[in-house]
Amino acid sequence: MFRNQYDTDVTTWSPAGRLFQVEYAMEAVKQGSAAIGLRSKTHIILGCVNKANSELSSHQKKIFKVDDHIGVAIAGLTADGRVLSRYMRNECINYSFTYESPLPVGRLVVQLADKAQVCTQRSWKRPNGVGLLVAGLDESGAHLYYNCPSGNYFEYQAFAIGSRSQAAKTYLERRFENFADSSRDDLVKDALMAIRETLQGETLKSSTCTVAVVGAGEPFHILDQETVQQMIDAFEIVGEQEGSAAAAGQEAAQPGAAVADQGGSTDEGVAPMDI
Amino acid sequence: MFRNQYDTDVTTWSPAGRLFQVEYAMEAVKQGSAAIGLRSKTHIILGCVNKANSELSSHQKKIFKVDDHIGVAIAGLTADGRVLSRYMRNECINYSFTYESPLPVGRLVVQLADKAQVCTQRSWKRPNGVGLLVAGLDESGAHLYYNCPSGNYFEYQAFAIGSRSQAAKTYLERRFENFADSSRDDLVKDALMAIRETLQGETLKSSTCTVAVVGAGEPFHILDQETVQQMIDAFEIVGEQEGSAAAAGQEAAQPGAAVADQGGSTDEGVAPMDI
Amino acid sequence: MFRNQYDTDVTTWSPAGRLFQVEYAMEAVKQGSAAIGLRSKTHIILGCVNKANSELSSHQKKIFKVDDHIGVAIAGLTADGRVLSRYMRNECINYSFTYESPLPVGRLVVQLADKAQVCTQRSWKRPNGVGLLVAGLDESGAHLYYNCPSGNYFEYQAFAIGSRSQAAKTYLERRFENFADSSRDDLVKDALMAIRETLQGETLKSSTCTVAVVGAGEPFHILDQETVQQMIDAFEIVGEQEGSAAAAGQEAAQPGAAVADQGGSTDEGVAPMDI
Amino acid sequence: MFRNQYDTDVTTWSPAGRLFQVEYAMEAVKQGSAAIGLRSKTHIILGCVNKANSELSSHQKKIFKVDDHIGVAIAGLTADGRVLSRYMRNECINYSFTYESPLPVGRLVVQLADKAQVCTQRSWKRPNGVGLLVAGLDESGAHLYYNCPSGNYFEYQAFAIGSRSQAAKTYLERRFENFADSSRDDLVKDALMAIRETLQGETLKSSTCTVAVVGAGEPFHILDQETVQQMIDAFEIVGEQEGSAAAAGQEAAQPGAAVADQGGSTDEGVAPMDI
Amino acid sequence: MFRNQYDTDVTTWSPAGRLFQVEYAMEAVKQGSAAIGLRSKTHIILGCVNKANSELSSHQKKIFKVDDHIGVAIAGLTADGRVLSRYMRNECINYSFTYESPLPVGRLVVQLADKAQVCTQRSWKRPNGVGLLVAGLDESGAHLYYNCPSGNYFEYQAFAIGSRSQAAKTYLERRFENFADSSRDDLVKDALMAIRETLQGETLKSSTCTVAVVGAGEPFHILDQETVQQMIDAFEIVGEQEGSAAAAGQEAAQPGAAVADQGGSTDEGVAPMDI
Amino acid sequence: MFRNQYDTDVTTWSPAGRLFQVEYAMEAVKQGSAAIGLRSKTHIILGCVNKANSELSSHQKKIFKVDDHIGVAIAGLTADGRVLSRYMRNECINYSFTYESPLPVGRLVVQLADKAQVCTQRSWKRPNGVGLLVAGLDESGAHLYYNCPSGNYFEYQAFAIGSRSQAAKTYLERRFENFADSSRDDLVKDALMAIRETLQGETLKSSTCTVAVVGAGEPFHILDQETVQQMIDAFEIVGEQEGSAAAAGQEAAQPGAAVADQGGSTDEGVAPMDI
Amino acid sequence: MFRNQYDTDVTTWSPAGRLFQVEYAMEAVKQGSAAIGLRSKTHIILGCVNKANSELSSHQKKIFKVDDHIGVAIAGLTADGRVLSRYMRNECINYSFTYESPLPVGRLVVQLADKAQVCTQRSWKRPNGVGLLVAGLDESGAHLYYNCPSGNYFEYQAFAIGSRSQAAKTYLERRFENFADSSRDDLVKDALMAIRETLQGETLKSSTCTVAVVGAGEPFHILDQETVQQMIDAFEIVGEQEGSAAAAGQEAAQPGAAVADQGGSTDEGVAPMDI
Repeated sequence: MFRNQYDTDVTTWSPAGRLFQVEYAMEAVKQGSAAIGLRSKTHIILGCVNKANSELSSHQKKIFKVDDHIGVAIAGLTADGRVLSRYMRNECINYSFTYESPLPVGRLVVQLADKAQVCTQRSWKRPNGVGLLVAGLDESGAHLYYNCPSGNYFEYQAFAIGSRSQAAKTYLERRFENFADSSRDDLVKDALMAIRETLQGETLKSSTCTVAVVGAGEPFHILDQETVQQMIDAFEIVGEQEGSAAAAGQEAAQPGAAVADQGGSTDEGVAPMDI
Repeated sequence: MFRNQYDTDVTTWSPAGRLFQVEYAMEAVKQGSAAIGLRSKTHIILGCVNKANSELSSHQKKIFKVDDHIGVAIAGLTADGRVLSRYMRNECINYSFTYESPLPVGRLVVQLADKAQVCTQRSWKRPNGVGLLVAGLDESGAHLYYNCPSGNYFEYQAFAIGSRSQAAKTYLERRFENFADSSRDDLVKDALMAIRETLQGETLKSSTCTVAVVGAGEPFHILDQETVQQMIDAFEIVGEQEGSAAAAGQEAAQPGAAVADQGGSTDEGVAPMDI
Repeated sequence: MFRNQYDTDVTTWSPAGRLFQVEYAMEAVKQGSAAIGLRSKTHIILGCVNKANSELSSHQKKIFKVDDHIGVAIAGLTADGRVLSRYMRNECINYSFTYESPLPVGRLVVQLADKAQVCTQRSWKRPNGVGLLVAGLDESGAHLYYNCPSGNYFEYQAFAIGSRSQAAKTYLERRFENFADSSRDDLVKDALMAIRETLQGETLKSSTCTVAVVGAGEPFHILDQETVQQMIDAFEIVGEQEGSAAAAGQEAAQPGAAVADQGGSTDEGVAPMDI
Repeated sequence: MFRNQYDTDVTTWSPAGRLFQVEYAMEAVKQGSAAIGLRSKTHIILGCVNKANSELSSHQKKIFKVDDHIGVAIAGLTADGRVLSRYMRNECINYSFTYESPLPVGRLVVQLADKAQVCTQRSWKRPNGVGLLVAGLDESGAHLYYNCPSGNYFEYQAFAIGSRSQAAKTYLERRFENFADSSRDDLVKDALMAIRETLQGETLKSSTCTVAVVGAGEPFHILDQETVQQMIDAFEIVGEQEGSAAAAGQEAAQPGAAVADQGGSTDEGVAPMDI
Repeated sequence: MFRNQYDTDVTTWSPAGRLFQVEYAMEAVKQGSAAIGLRSKTHIILGCVNKANSELSSHQKKIFKVDDHIGVAIAGLTADGRVLSRYMRNECINYSFTYESPLPVGRLVVQLADKAQVCTQRSWKRPNGVGLLVAGLDESGAHLYYNCPSGNYFEYQAFAIGSRSQAAKTYLERRFENFADSSRDDLVKDALMAIRETLQGETLKSSTCTVAVVGAGEPFHILDQETVQQMIDAFEIVGEQEGSAAAAGQEAAQPGAAVADQGGSTDEGVAPMDI
Repeated sequence: MFRNQYDTDVTTWSPAGRLFQVEYAMEAVKQGSAAIGLRSKTHIILGCVNKANSELSSHQKKIFKVDDHIGVAIAGLTADGRVLSRYMRNECINYSFTYESPLPVGRLVVQLADKAQVCTQRSWKRPNGVGLLVAGLDESGAHLYYNCPSGNYFEYQAFAIGSRSQAAKTYLERRFENFADSSRDDLVKDALMAIRETLQGETLKSSTCTVAVVGAGEPFHILDQETVQQMIDAFEIVGEQEGSAAAAGQEAAQPGAAVADQGGSTDEGVAPMDI
Repeated sequence: MFRNQYDTDVTTWSPAGRLFQVEYAMEAVKQGSAAIGLRSKTHIILGCVNKANSELSSHQKKIFKVDDHIGVAIAGLTADGRVLSRYMRNECINYSFTYESPLPVGRLVVQLADKAQVCTQRSWKRPNGVGLLVAGLDESGAHLYYNCPSGNYFEYQAFAIGSRSQAAKTYLERRFENFADSSRDDLVKDALMAIRETLQGETLKSSTCTVAVVGAGEPFHILDQETVQQMIDAFEIVGEQEGSAAAAGQEAAQPGAAVADQGGSTDEGVAPMDI
């Protein structure tokens, strides 16, 4: 009720110093299917849940290659995300044409964020409705960034966005201390595990998720379904074996996790931007 | 009632992170007369229901040739669709003039989607009110895409859009596993069957539908009425023969199908965009 | 009452996927005085009811010559129609100057429709308030198109637009099967008869209608009043003779026609665009 | 009450297909002091009522010379009329400079109408608030046009616009059949009589009206007051002599005229545009 | 109450064909301190009441020299008036530079009026809030014009605008028949008398009024205070002598004058523009 | 209540011919800390009250040097004032570069006022929220102007603007007759006394006020704190000595002054612009 | 309630002469995590509280290097701050390229403020939602400025902005008299102490704050965590030793401080801009 005056125009401040239209755009990210990212010192893995509109369609592409050393996973308005990833691709091409070296990841992320900021300060535009996990490897190492509709960006060790991402975040927080020195394959496994967390009871199959890798000596590419399925099969077996032990351990862990989860879901209400 | 604030301007986000004006534009696609598409490895068939305004008029053209290797079927605002197909035609001409090779289908589809996305982010425009089934054959094979007013696109094995398209989708879902290896003529037959599903009791005649084919060694063209009528006649006879057997089989299938149908018709309410 | 939110701006979609402002503009066509068109294989006739503002004024011109092979009859906002016909004239001149051949009718009609579509997608414009019956003869034969404010166009064998056009449409539907092979003079006679249907009891005189012809070997021109009056006189006499016979025939036909008529008048309420 | 949604913006259609802002602008013409025009085969006379703001001021100029062969009388917003007549003057100059012949009247009138139409289709403008009686003589003879704020124009034998113009129109309708072959001086007399009709009991004096003539061998010019007064004096005497006879004749004529008059005043309510 | 829909936007017509925003701007002229003008055949006098904001400030300049042969007195928004007089000055300079002769007064007045008209037809502007009395002498003699925010202009023998201008107008109307042949000094005296009328009981002093003259052989200039005071002193003495006689004469005149005055003050209500 | 329609847009006139948005902007000047100015024949002094946001900050600069011969003191929105003083600086530089002589003060003031006027006539801008006291010395002598958000300017002998400026104005009005022939140092003293009047009981210290001088042979400069403090100390001592005598004299003067003050504070309500 | 008319558009003045949208933007600064700055004669220290979105992310960067001699700390909308700091960086580069000397700090601050002012005077923009503490060293010494969304800037000895900044301000006010001659390390310590004040009971760790230094012979750089932690450890020990003594002293000091604090928090309500 009390919002009826300040929340329809992106250039209007509320009396409390908030830009509601930007916050609403961030809500769109939470509605998109989940995307996750995590990194070791040498590799970055992006993953997302495939959501097909129907049996007849292929799933919508949510992970895009930007350059050999950069890729992006999106959650939210796919069309906005696609247009932004095209922008990133152009920037990479122009940079490497001019400087004959790959565009540093951090630099690209800032440009992307600046572009998003413009959409929050013009009355005839709207903020983008998409969050982007940017994975890249450059001279300064492996990077994982999250670009937000508000024009902010954050560097992460591991992160998850989109619907039911809280469960994946909880998983990643429990494990992220090991990531830095993980092998490439362990990282992929962790990515798959995190994706499984967002599925809420559905079985993880190679057809319902996409996983991409970029790392030292390995240009950004999406893993083929076969490889993914093999890895899933591998750890499902291990998982079952570990099941009884883990179940016990989980019982102890669950209450706390449950609390964290609830806290997380509360966080998913319309909250002020992080500023 | 509760929508009275966020749904009149395409650049306004709702508190739940939705763009109502884009969703409303997608409603226009559902109001248009049905269009269907399906493909084998080598051929793509587009079909649509002809709706004549009166006895005096020819039916409105809903299938357009874009290039020798690409065609499009639309549902929704015909004028918007025509303007977009003209845009596609120009892109094809420019590409083949510059590169002396046909424009890859996927590339055209992305350009079209990007163009649609722009209309969802400018306050002085409106989203297009048309859905497009793009059929094309290029070096990577046969493709069928659906381009949506939201700026999204999806690749399909087979798809149906427009009013009463749910029945056609149900038909296509039941059969699509055979399509990949279907002969051209079987595909056309399936297209006609799917179209018949959207007619709700009306008889299928060559005058009430249009069917177009593009395939290996066969540039995009609309089948002439005579050919279509022959095919209809052919399977109507077969259909009647198969009628009693199928009826029994259908009885068993129906309940599930009915449920699917209801689920489908629920989907046809104003629902959030697929993001 | 329930429309108070979505129907004042042409770039605003209603929740049901309609553009009310476009539909309202189509209403303006229905308010204009009637215009009719019909064609054989070689000739196209345009006709309209002359409406003079007062005894003192000549009637307003509603039929315009576009080129030797193309003419147009309008219903709705005359000023909008005049500006559009000027546009058509320019297109014809430019085309024949460049290509040294007349502009194909279908091509002109598409350009006109595309121009109309633009007015339905810019917030600072309004849709045109005029419907145009475009008559033209080119290499592909005789054509009659109807261009609508929505940016749609339709090809017709015969059509009538404007106020009380339903009666004329009913007449044309009863007779159109003979048109294709009609002689030029029979076509003109049918045009006059159709015009008479829209007059509701008023007597048809050469001063209250305008008739134009374009055909093989006959550039687009408006018939002079004398010629028209002679033709009227001719068939009025015949008409009276046929009167008693027809009256009987009509009695049988009427009930059905009346139903059609009612259906027709219902159609004239604000209805969704044909899409 | 029921108009509160569609009548403040010129680019907004009402559900009944009307543009209220254009109709309101036409209302402004009705509020202006009266202007009349009439023509024979060789001469056109324009006349208007002079309205002085105070004893101290000269009356406002309402008749403008456009070129030697064209003049204009306005009713409504004088400033709008002046700007439009300046536009007409420029068009005439440019034309005669380029083609070394006077601009045909009909052509100028169309250009003027097209200019007015633009003001009815842009959201940041308003329709002109002025009606123009354009009198001109060219190779095709003597012409009298009325240009309306809606972008329409009409050719008239004789016409009157502005406040209380209905009485003048009634006079002109009674007499116009003689005009074609009237002598120049009879036309001027009829103009004066028509102006007198709009004065409602006030005495006609050369100071309260302006009369202009354009004709064969007589470039457009405003008659000097002396000449006008002589003509008034002349027919006033005749008028008085004819008075008793006419009075009797009028008694019979009046009832019908009164009815016509009432019908006329009803017409002056806000009515849909003539389309 | 009933105005709440049509009077906030200058491009919006009211149903009665009025532009309220233009009328409101004319109200601003009535709020400004009074300005008067009058002319003989050879001289034009402009005068205004000086209104100082405080003891500390000089009074605001309300009479501006435009060129040697043209000057202007304003009432209303001084800033608007100043900007317009600068425009006039530029026009005069450009004209005399190009044609080596002074810009005719009437021509300048039309340009000024056209400029004002533009402000009444663009949604992103507002009508000027100032009235200008333009005094000028050219080959066609002495001229006094009044330019109004509506884009209209009027030629006057004598006129007064601004607050309490009705009393001055009454004075001028009583006397204007003598002005044409008045000597320069008599005109100045009449100007001072007219200014005194607007003061309502305050004593006329050279410090509370400004008087400017332009005439044959006398370029536009503002009279110095000393000269003005001498003239005031002169007629004050005469005035007192004539007092008793005039008082008697006035007693008879007053009732009528009072009525005129009331009528005048009624005129000062918000009335439709003169069109 | 009654203002709810005409006071949110700067291009909207109220029915009484007022521009409320301009008046509201003038309100901002009254909210700023006080600024005063006064002049003799050869010197102009500007002064203002220093308002520091906190102990930690320097006070905000409210007096700006424009050129050697011009300076400005502001009250109201500092940011607007700063931008305008930068504009003035540029104008001075350009002028002296082109003409090799200093820009006359009056000319600069007019340019500044014209710039302010533009902001009152464009819908996408807002009137400046700052008042400027412009002090300058040129060939025509010493000048003090006040530029107002409305686009008006006034020349003053002495003036005070901003919050509690009424007390300073009262002081200046009591004394201004001596200013013309005052010595530079007496002027500065009067400036300090006037500033003290606006402090309402606070003690005047060199740290709470800024004083600037421009005069014959003395380019515009701000006095250093030490000098100011010495002058304050000097007259404080004298003031105390004169205290008893003055107190008696003031007692008589006070009542009237108090009345003036009340009148003054009434003046500070939202009042129509001076026009 | 009473604000519902003037506070949604940045170009709209309230009747009291306030720009609410600018004030609301200043509210955004108060919501951001705290930033502090302080300076001696030779060094300037910037500090801020690190706020990480989650365990997984690095904290958001709030201190930016602009040039070797200039840096900036922000509070409020990070995206706005980043875009502005990029602007500053460009200005520095351009200046040093052109003049081969570093851009003076005060000059940059004014440019930044002017840029901010523009956003408060255009209807299609919004005021920036960020406050910037600009630290710089140039020929005129060490400077600390605060740039505000209103387009104002202030020079400070020491300052704190953002949430809970009042406690830091209170600390800085108690100590700032010593800062001018403080050693670099004492300044850093004071910065850390001030930051601790804003943490409200949380422990100060090197990971939860960022400190940057620029000074004579020391280009702008952010201190590494190790150094910061050592300094924290150092004074924590001292702090504990001094604890008992200080506690006693604080007890006396607290009441007053508490009052100041309350006053401070009152100040944090929506208050008029400092003008």
